[in-house]
Amino acid sequence: MATDLKGSYRQLMERSKRLTVLRTASGIIQWDMETKMPPKGVEQRSEQLSLLDLIAHREMVDPSVGTLLDTIEKNRGYSSLDEKQKRNVHLYRKNFDEEAKLPDELVVETSKQAAICVNVWKRAKAAKDFQMFRPELAKMISLRERAAEIMMGVKGTKTPYDALLDAFEPGMTAERITEIFTGMRKGLMDIMKKVESSDVEPDVKLLSRKVPIDAQRKIGQMAMDFVKYDTTSKEAGGRLDETEHPFSTGYFDDVRITTHYYENRWPSSLFSVLHESGHALYEQNIEQSWKWQPIGNAASYGIHESQSRFVENIVGRSPEFLEFMLPKLRKICGPALKGVRLDRFVAAVNQVEASKIRIEADEVTYGMHIIIRFEIERDIFAGKVKVEELPEVWNEKYHKYLGVEIEHDSEGVMQDTHWAGGAFGYFPSYALGNIYGGMFLKKMDSDLPEWRGEVKMGNYQPVGTWLKENVHSKGNLYDPADLVRKVTGKDLEIEPFIYYLKQKMGRIYGF
Amino acid sequence: MATDLKGSYRQLMERSKRLTVLRTASGIIQWDMETKMPPKGVEQRSEQLSLLDLIAHREMVDPSVGTLLDTIEKNRGYSSLDEKQKRNVHLYRKNFDEEAKLPDELVVETSKQAAICVNVWKRAKAAKDFQMFRPELAKMISLRERAAEIMMGVKGTKTPYDALLDAFEPGMTAERITEIFTGMRKGLMDIMKKVESSDVEPDVKLLSRKVPIDAQRKIGQMAMDFVKYDTTSKEAGGRLDETEHPFSTGYFDDVRITTHYYENRWPSSLFSVLHESGHALYEQNIEQSWKWQPIGNAASYGIHESQSRFVENIVGRSPEFLEFMLPKLRKICGPALKGVRLDRFVAAVNQVEASKIRIEADEVTYGMHIIIRFEIERDIFAGKVKVEELPEVWNEKYHKYLGVEIEHDSEGVMQDTHWAGGAFGYFPSYALGNIYGGMFLKKMDSDLPEWRGEVKMGNYQPVGTWLKENVHSKGNLYDPADLVRKVTGKDLEIEPFIYYLKQKMGRIYGF
Repeated sequence: MATDLKGSYRQLMERSKRLTVLRTASGIIQWDMETKMPPKGVEQRSEQLSLLDLIAHREMVDPSVGTLLDTIEKNRGYSSLDEKQKRNVHLYRKNFDEEAKLPDELVVETSKQAAICVNVWKRAKAAKDFQMFRPELAKMISLRERAAEIMMGVKGTKTPYDALLDAFEPGMTAERITEIFTGMRKGLMDIMKKVESSDVEPDVKLLSRKVPIDAQRKIGQMAMDFVKYDTTSKEAGGRLDETEHPFSTGYFDDVRITTHYYENRWPSSLFSVLHESGHALYEQNIEQSWKWQPIGNAASYGIHESQSRFVENIVGRSPEFLEFMLPKLRKICGPALKGVRLDRFVAAVNQVEASKIRIEADEVTYGMHIIIRFEIERDIFAGKVKVEELPEVWNEKYHKYLGVEIEHDSEGVMQDTHWAGGAFGYFPSYALGNIYGGMFLKKMDSDLPEWRGEVKMGNYQPVGTWLKENVHSKGNLYDPADLVRKVTGKDLEIEPFIYYLKQKMGRIYGF
Repeated sequence: MATDLKGSYRQLMERSKRLTVLRTASGIIQWDMETKMPPKGVEQRSEQLSLLDLIAHREMVDPSVGTLLDTIEKNRGYSSLDEKQKRNVHLYRKNFDEEAKLPDELVVETSKQAAICVNVWKRAKAAKDFQMFRPELAKMISLRERAAEIMMGVKGTKTPYDALLDAFEPGMTAERITEIFTGMRKGLMDIMKKVESSDVEPDVKLLSRKVPIDAQRKIGQMAMDFVKYDTTSKEAGGRLDETEHPFSTGYFDDVRITTHYYENRWPSSLFSVLHESGHALYEQNIEQSWKWQPIGNAASYGIHESQSRFVENIVGRSPEFLEFMLPKLRKICGPALKGVRLDRFVAAVNQVEASKIRIEADEVTYGMHIIIRFEIERDIFAGKVKVEELPEVWNEKYHKYLGVEIEHDSEGVMQDTHWAGGAFGYFPSYALGNIYGGMFLKKMDSDLPEWRGEVKMGNYQPVGTWLKENVHSKGNLYDPADLVRKVTGKDLEIEPFIYYLKQKMGRIYGF
């Protein structure tokens, strides 16, 4: 019996390895598509990606996997497995149950529709024509509805939308998010009001002075060197490329990031490099011996975002980091930073102002963009909002929550690619990331009271080590809520994030 | 019955597509490893590549493929299939029979040993230490011996080495190559003697004047523009990157090349870009409607080399091309080409001189490097040469055939990666490529007598179209010997290649 258990567990981990190797192979091909592929290759590429998806899906749902899982779970020696082994079995079981219920046909159709829909979205966005996008989006939504219905049954969630949320943030529900976001909204509105009534007006124009791309490359390299994301040494496990939208991808020893350089908006690439480095370091720092196992992955998309935003915002936009960087930036940027004092620079990169575009939003108003998307997603999958109503609903909410007027759908409901790709349930992760980050910061402040002083002297190591030990290395050993509890001793709470913002913005805006 | 045939054929082509999609996916991952992968990623990468190899192997040898093939071949309607369909069935059958006989275990072990052996080869070459390389090479040889024995049975070749040759050059045998190479050796030695006794001494030093890498990039772009290998337009299906050793890889709409820039040897990148563009254009020009089918591939490695060498040498080192390029090169190279007259330039890039390194050899002595490798390979697999004797045998042959003295094994038996990777039987393809090229040239001279004049005016189109129509577009519709006969009306012969060299070198060296 015990041999049976050991042997079956070993076999399960071998399957996990095959599956992970396949997925990482697919990840490289995806990366290539975004960064290097000649434009004509797109059709061949979609064949490659959908075949690898299908092979991975079949590998996952092979009936022998069910047999292995049964053998392990029902074995009388099961309780002798350690915590990590049990978690591996649990994660594999969850994934198997979910995928096994999805028909091959739905998997293939969804993957093809995603390719089509993203393609049409690009064209429709360029043409500012929601009507062009509408029918493909409707098809995508109905495919996701089918999947959500099936997964609701497997996961036992209350609603189909909860099943989608769970795929990105295990254990999270729309009810809980509504509750959290209500608190967050209140806190953010309060800060927004204080900012509005402040006399301080950060001079953001100084950030749009022209800095050549080559100089920006040097700045990006400095940022990566600062956080010790290695893209240059003989043992490097990372690299930086250029794409329209920055992203990160990879696994353990090969994790890559991208950025975009704007001549007239140079801080954009500095902060996107920091953001993506935060993602990359998380992947690289997961406990090495868990490679190829289910626990050898990030805990959730929300935790992932907490790490990227921690590096970008909490560290990267801190007065201490900016103080350390300013003299170096001055040398590289030349005239663009001439005569710019530290306090003006700190205020400019932390300006709070309601805007139309999520990815350009500041730390405070960002959450409002997410609340809008969450409410709309939730209502779509509850049958309360129809596809044709999306532009109107979107524009109304932007007016109501952010006080901005959307002029056309390309700066409105079509600004993001997520829905075109079928990633409903993803958006909340971004805001959860901010909230987790606030909680981690509070704990780190108490564990490492000297961290800001160290950053000011150019030393990221204490922060990097704290994040690695407390978050990164833990991989997927815990569901996000449990991980947060392990690290901070608390259940999810909004206060630390709001406190952090109030302190920081209060200092800049004088409240 | 007819439906059965149609349905089975369609199914076979679907399997062909899956297999090809998998192999092209693997090709992208391989390309990434050579060009972009962070160094630390190497272990993960070998897992990805060997898994994809294994999946493709299993896909290939799935018993249902055998059933499909049987159903088609034994169907009474078989003769109603057209030439292309029959060729597809033939190629699939051949591949199936060969792979089905190779045990999974041998496939996996060979693919792993190749990775190990290439790795050790790199280190041993750097350390000039053949003893370090020897045991891994011996293992690799014995794995290839096992495969060759099995394939000999399937293919019905006379010797195991013939089975290896057939994998690169279908239908070719060691006996036939010995015969061809005997003629080639005689012809080459004759030219070498004439060159030696000539008073002309090309001034090759002028090629080692320093040219900045950025200027070399412009030259490479000009070369690609000249042959219409598109890496820059919105419909581009190619790209150029930088690696230690130039290579090309890809399929139809995504075919990539690499080069290496040497500051003090600028023509190296010009000619390697032309060479690899020749490979790339072949892949891109195969009849588009044959994509994913067995006939939608190159005919052989020898035919492939004929195309790359045609573009590099027959066109690229021709006085006409060099005359067209020289004024443009002058502008880009500046001082490096100051005062260099056309005839001096033509003589320098066509210098004939025995040397130690194959990839640096000229058009005449190149064949001798291949003869040496062929004789050694043949003798290894006939049990006449042992691994430990390789350095001695190598050095003796270099003394005898080329009159050069090898000082250490890194410039001797360890100079090439092929044997480390297990590619025994590959080397003859290079020389066969030259010989095929000579035959194609003779026919093209008679079809397109004006081609040299066109090239002189910067017009590659007639040559490009001739190669596309006669060779590229035909894909793998014929075995190489049949293709050559279709194009030239002749069986393989050495004379046109020797005639071409004599004419060209005679003009330069005055004989």
